Amino acid sequence: MQSSTTVSPLISSFGLAVRQLRGREGLSQERLAERANLNRSYIGELERGEAIASLLTLEKLAQALNSRPSHLLSHTERIVQKRHVYGIALTSIAC
Amino acid sequence: MQSSTTVSPLISSFGLAVRQLRGREGLSQERLAERANLNRSYIGELERGEAIASLLTLEKLAQALNSRPSHLLSHTERIVQKRHVYGIALTSIAC
Repeated sequence: MQSSTTVSPLISSFGLAVRQLRGREGLSQERLAERANLNRSYIGELERGEAIASLLTLEKLAQALNSRPSHLLSHTERIVQKRHVYGIALTSIAC
Repeated sequence: MQSSTTVSPLISSFGLAVRQLRGREGLSQERLAERANLNRSYIGELERGEAIASLLTLEKLAQALNSRPSHLLSHTERIVQKRHVYGIALTSIAC
């Protein structure tokens, strides 16, 4: 686990991307964890940028979110771009 | 480390995607390792599907390959698709 203040923009933005896509699917962290066969607390760590996902976790999350790994990352990259352009707080970025 | 026979198609295809994009850039494993600030032997393990990359490693590799993480994964997904459609050996797939 790493502090969210030390990880790269991609890592912290990945957490927000997961949270946004989870919201779009109308899933709680618990339900996403069940679907992805991951621990609920691990989902929370990922969404807060406190844990770094492996490619395997990325694959599980994408499947559980009815998405593809590349789409999950392109969504993440758009968030990184918005942060760079507008310099706004992560939590204030709308989908 | 896991055997390439037990990992998901995405993991093993990711290794081939890295190898293909490295070839397109004209880079040796050693040069890619230097650019990405990763160990040369780890690059070899990733390319053989023997190691599972983290999102941080994916980001380093994409930068070193003049690409984006999402592009590296969409390239990987195309390889997975080709394997599924044609059922051909991983190593025989052309870029």
